[in-house]
Amino acid sequence: MAAGRAADGRGSKDAPTAARRERSSASAPAGAPGRGRRLAGRPRPVIEAVRPQVEGGRYPAKASLGELVVVEADVFADGHDELFVELTHRPGDHGAGATVAMTPLPDDRWRGTFAVEALGRHHFSIRAGVDHFATWRHDVAARAAAGQDVTVELEVGAGLVKAAARKAGPEDRPRLAALAEQLVRAPRGLESEVDATLARDLGAAGPSGAAPSLHDLLDAPGLAGLMARNRPPGPVAVSPDLTVRVERERARFGAWYELFPRSTVTPDVPGTLAGVVSRLDDVVRMGFDVVYLPPIHPIGVTSRKGRDGVPTAGPDDPGSPWAIGLGRGGHTAVHPDLGTIEDLDRLVAAARDRGLDIALDLAFQCSPDHPWVADHPEWFVHRPDGSIRYAENPPKRYEDIFPLNFDTPAWPELWEALRAVVEFWIGHGITVFRVDNPHTKPFAFWEWLIATVSDDHPEVIFLSEAFTRPKVMKRLAKLGFSQSYTYFAWRQGSAELEAYMSELVHTDVADYLRANLWPNTPDILTEELQTGGPPAFLCRLVLAATLGANYGIYGPPFELVEHVPRSAGSEEYKDSEKYAVRHWDLERPDSLAEFVARVNRIRRENPALHRDATLRFHHVDNPQLLCYSKTFLVEEPRYYGAGPAHAPRDPNTVLVVVNLDHRFVQSGWLQLDLGRLGLDPGQPFVVHDLLTDAHYRWADNPHYVQLDPDVVPAHIFRVHRPDDPAAPGGPR
Amino acid sequence: MAAGRAADGRGSKDAPTAARRERSSASAPAGAPGRGRRLAGRPRPVIEAVRPQVEGGRYPAKASLGELVVVEADVFADGHDELFVELTHRPGDHGAGATVAMTPLPDDRWRGTFAVEALGRHHFSIRAGVDHFATWRHDVAARAAAGQDVTVELEVGAGLVKAAARKAGPEDRPRLAALAEQLVRAPRGLESEVDATLARDLGAAGPSGAAPSLHDLLDAPGLAGLMARNRPPGPVAVSPDLTVRVERERARFGAWYELFPRSTVTPDVPGTLAGVVSRLDDVVRMGFDVVYLPPIHPIGVTSRKGRDGVPTAGPDDPGSPWAIGLGRGGHTAVHPDLGTIEDLDRLVAAARDRGLDIALDLAFQCSPDHPWVADHPEWFVHRPDGSIRYAENPPKRYEDIFPLNFDTPAWPELWEALRAVVEFWIGHGITVFRVDNPHTKPFAFWEWLIATVSDDHPEVIFLSEAFTRPKVMKRLAKLGFSQSYTYFAWRQGSAELEAYMSELVHTDVADYLRANLWPNTPDILTEELQTGGPPAFLCRLVLAATLGANYGIYGPPFELVEHVPRSAGSEEYKDSEKYAVRHWDLERPDSLAEFVARVNRIRRENPALHRDATLRFHHVDNPQLLCYSKTFLVEEPRYYGAGPAHAPRDPNTVLVVVNLDHRFVQSGWLQLDLGRLGLDPGQPFVVHDLLTDAHYRWADNPHYVQLDPDVVPAHIFRVHRPDDPAAPGGPR
Repeated sequence: MAAGRAADGRGSKDAPTAARRERSSASAPAGAPGRGRRLAGRPRPVIEAVRPQVEGGRYPAKASLGELVVVEADVFADGHDELFVELTHRPGDHGAGATVAMTPLPDDRWRGTFAVEALGRHHFSIRAGVDHFATWRHDVAARAAAGQDVTVELEVGAGLVKAAARKAGPEDRPRLAALAEQLVRAPRGLESEVDATLARDLGAAGPSGAAPSLHDLLDAPGLAGLMARNRPPGPVAVSPDLTVRVERERARFGAWYELFPRSTVTPDVPGTLAGVVSRLDDVVRMGFDVVYLPPIHPIGVTSRKGRDGVPTAGPDDPGSPWAIGLGRGGHTAVHPDLGTIEDLDRLVAAARDRGLDIALDLAFQCSPDHPWVADHPEWFVHRPDGSIRYAENPPKRYEDIFPLNFDTPAWPELWEALRAVVEFWIGHGITVFRVDNPHTKPFAFWEWLIATVSDDHPEVIFLSEAFTRPKVMKRLAKLGFSQSYTYFAWRQGSAELEAYMSELVHTDVADYLRANLWPNTPDILTEELQTGGPPAFLCRLVLAATLGANYGIYGPPFELVEHVPRSAGSEEYKDSEKYAVRHWDLERPDSLAEFVARVNRIRRENPALHRDATLRFHHVDNPQLLCYSKTFLVEEPRYYGAGPAHAPRDPNTVLVVVNLDHRFVQSGWLQLDLGRLGLDPGQPFVVHDLLTDAHYRWADNPHYVQLDPDVVPAHIFRVHRPDDPAAPGGPR
Repeated sequence: MAAGRAADGRGSKDAPTAARRERSSASAPAGAPGRGRRLAGRPRPVIEAVRPQVEGGRYPAKASLGELVVVEADVFADGHDELFVELTHRPGDHGAGATVAMTPLPDDRWRGTFAVEALGRHHFSIRAGVDHFATWRHDVAARAAAGQDVTVELEVGAGLVKAAARKAGPEDRPRLAALAEQLVRAPRGLESEVDATLARDLGAAGPSGAAPSLHDLLDAPGLAGLMARNRPPGPVAVSPDLTVRVERERARFGAWYELFPRSTVTPDVPGTLAGVVSRLDDVVRMGFDVVYLPPIHPIGVTSRKGRDGVPTAGPDDPGSPWAIGLGRGGHTAVHPDLGTIEDLDRLVAAARDRGLDIALDLAFQCSPDHPWVADHPEWFVHRPDGSIRYAENPPKRYEDIFPLNFDTPAWPELWEALRAVVEFWIGHGITVFRVDNPHTKPFAFWEWLIATVSDDHPEVIFLSEAFTRPKVMKRLAKLGFSQSYTYFAWRQGSAELEAYMSELVHTDVADYLRANLWPNTPDILTEELQTGGPPAFLCRLVLAATLGANYGIYGPPFELVEHVPRSAGSEEYKDSEKYAVRHWDLERPDSLAEFVARVNRIRRENPALHRDATLRFHHVDNPQLLCYSKTFLVEEPRYYGAGPAHAPRDPNTVLVVVNLDHRFVQSGWLQLDLGRLGLDPGQPFVVHDLLTDAHYRWADNPHYVQLDPDVVPAHIFRVHRPDDPAAPGGPR
């Protein structure tokens, strides 16, 4: 890993090079002196495999406001000496840094943490060196314990303390001098009684009130800090400077609701941005955080697609919102049927009043009628016959869309124009963007756009809609997208779901990719939803909302269990809103809105569900059942603070069991990893089903569960320690 | 991974920086022009996750003479364009480079290979760009197949061909011109008949002899090369320059035999280097390649250890060879009892005559009587009482050894002195060194020493004896050691052995660490060997010799089944040769020498056993049995050539089954991965047991095996395809 490179590289690489150079110059001697200067102060420790890290620091890792960033690295040296390992972190590019000691884990791994409480870039690096005093202290204790004479060793220790005293300020110097004194004047070795004042100063305590001995003094809590503060200069290995980019909490935790403004139509009101305002209270009632609108711009007429995407539109067909641009209206215009820019401003304000974000769609492509086609023909690909190349994936054709030509020599103007589009909407209060097909535009463009925009507007969130190959999807996340759509919609069965979520959460992917889980989108009506009935919708909702801190649904089709495809084998909706205005009866008694609301309320009330890092799967003896937990515990290594990063005021553990079979009752035995749940084996505990309000008293393993898809296909348990005051009443 | 950095980094990072810079300077415009210059020719592909690679190129990866180095990388770009990916490689630091096309694997992975036929460093890098012609050819074919009119597309293609023609030399230009001509003059699109000469030149053939069409021409084998040769300049992504260090074959494949020269004593001859010469034919008969001698230098008398390592030696105790130095004799002297430097020269020559390497021990530490103690006191640690610090791992003490102080300010002289020791023995024909406890000396020293020595003597092999923590062990391998001792001796049971060997062979560890497997050493008599009797020795020998291309035994104790520990729970031998001269009766009827010879002959005759990369484990339904194979097949991705890297003249597959239970007969059913064995399902095949000479005709799966530890605890099958002329006669 690249961290290792600079870690011990600087010196190490010199030596051979220098040696070669000097041997090749006949006049020079063996060359040691020359190398001597070059290599003086070579550090012995190695720092490797630093996390979080994206391609050796090529990209910033991701963090969010209030998060406690957990830094780990392999740090080790030759021999048996003890090391000191420090984590230095610095908010922003010029902020003042702070340094904390890292603590050893098994297998030469070290861990340190720092809180991030400002948006933007934070830098961190690791320093490591040999801790001669700690090494001496460990060895002298071992020798004494073996009954060896340590007189001379105590002199050695005194020498180390004196060296520290020479470096120390007036505050510490007297104590260090006194300590050195004690070490040379120790008639009975470590058993020798020590000066009471010094012992008190360093917090040394003798066994059961007896006068503290030198042995006690060396174990005194105050001693390590005293010596660390006054460590004499010595060779230190330093990792490269690494970066985390801190975004607001919404980047890490949020429930999205996608709706087509033009379908907010009611018998008397046409679908408009004003209509969206009238839907907001609904959306709030359902508990969502982000309302995402497909493109709201004028729609081209040339080659406009008709209902169900047929090549030719009828006179009343509204066309696809992704065929952007008509007349003078392009990416910064509002479709006249939807209203005006002022209506958009009113919508944004109304949403803000309700604590909602409005997310707009960035679809960087044009209809043949987009003003840029006439104003900037150089931004498009022209064929020999003079025509402009429309979008194709041969033999598929999308005549209603002209892709932009990022290979144009005029690309700098194109890049700036696209950035201006983003800045325009930011100017109107939009801080969340869902980006359409980013994988069909150059990586370098996105890296530049996101870096440039977030330097000025660190609050802006970009969601990548790249349903493409895994490595392309990951690259977009690495280069800066805040969140990414995933393959979740197509992952079925307990093995597939566990493997996929584990890859996202427990590999280095977690350093750069934040998953946003969608059971459906206007382009994706999975076969499972087509055939599984309401139980499939409930199941996929619970999975998305509890496996993912970020998730979203495309409604009203989702809560109204819309499940008919355009044709057999297609994932397109019949009468898709992409090409038609739909009238939705939100009052339908079979609407899942209430269930959605309940699940979102559970999400909000349980901080364990506000992050993905603590996701763990538990064994069930029935593959039709999936069992997993998320925790919000101080001990949790990847624990994230909800607000400012401190120990949670109220530890929180959620255990979910889902029946993946939409037709039959399934039951099985859970084998819980109690440690992961913050429980002590043997201790009984209470699980409270937040969906049904039932609660049970459990202890140890295994536990029987049974789920009927036609009632509720899942348990979402809050797990209470027996001593938890918030635990519900007695057992059933 | 660091490769990704330069891959698309150079441009990408500029853009935002430049943009920021320009926005911050009020006078400048949006800054596009400035960026324009900086970013012109930005490459769209990304190159990531290049193998082989050690810490992003910080260290060279390992290869050996005649090896076919297999390079893989993730290469992908935005959109759907086809890419060209090329591997450029260059022997030495100034050699001429060659370029080969890489071929696509699933999941955006690409592979290319190059042969290394010179010792020392070879460099390689990867280039990738968009292949506009291949993209066009793919798309036009798809359009035509869908019955779309491609007239205009053919003009587009003609444009690409003309661009190539402008770049082409007189050789290719006429053909390209002719091709362009065909494309614009194609009345019936791809169905149009094409000029016969051009078609013949490019190797185009019509269906069943019919006149070739444009469609056939675009599929012609000669076309891709023609266009690739004349590719117009365009943006290209380039990976960092990476390195492999090529060592001789012995670094990859060899059987080691360790013996104490002083124990070659016979009733009439004392143990000397001359005695070792008299043992060489034995060693050759047993089939070993390397004879490793513990230190042959004068041994100190101060604090000399007695028999079984007791603190005080008797008058006749010879002391530990690792307590180096007496009088004027240090690391470049030969112990007078063993003979003279001339005897060593004679031994080296005698070994060379027999195709053997003599390996010496580099133990960089001194006895209190070493000349350096007087001549260079500054190379040792002095305690306040004036004494020199002896080796300790408190509370353990090694008073007969003074460690060298690598923290001394005089370290450059110390480094050079140690290098001089190595050069001295190289001067006497030694090219293999077993390095004692390298993990107790600084990493930087070893990196410098190995790099410096192998620049002048690329044939020299260093074996790292670092029985320490995993990451320290790996670091030493990364920084340059040719081979490493491993934890093999302590890995037991099929699960443990499979997991450990898989880590060594199938993870990135394989890029830098070559395992050398030892069932025993003078320091390691495992409990398994203490208690398992001869079957344990046979079992561990077969495992070491067939799991590892490099392995070794410490003899005669191994073949004479020496198994009594110094004390219960100890891994030290009773009457260890480390502290005593032993008389071995090599003629004992129960000696395993014959079995060892047979196993080593099998190793030598089967190239599949000359490398580790092809090791694969196969399923057995009995955990007491371990089943694995090694292959030497052209298709094998990590195939290594035995001589110069070409397809093996004689494909070779070895299948091993070992009974890990030393007491009872074990039987089970094998489920072979036939593809891994180069076999076609359904095809019968012959397995020939090279230990017992039995052979069986098998087909498909499963296969029954039964092994009696008291007869032979293993099968070493050679697997023959039915058509293999070398297959033994009919079935039994």
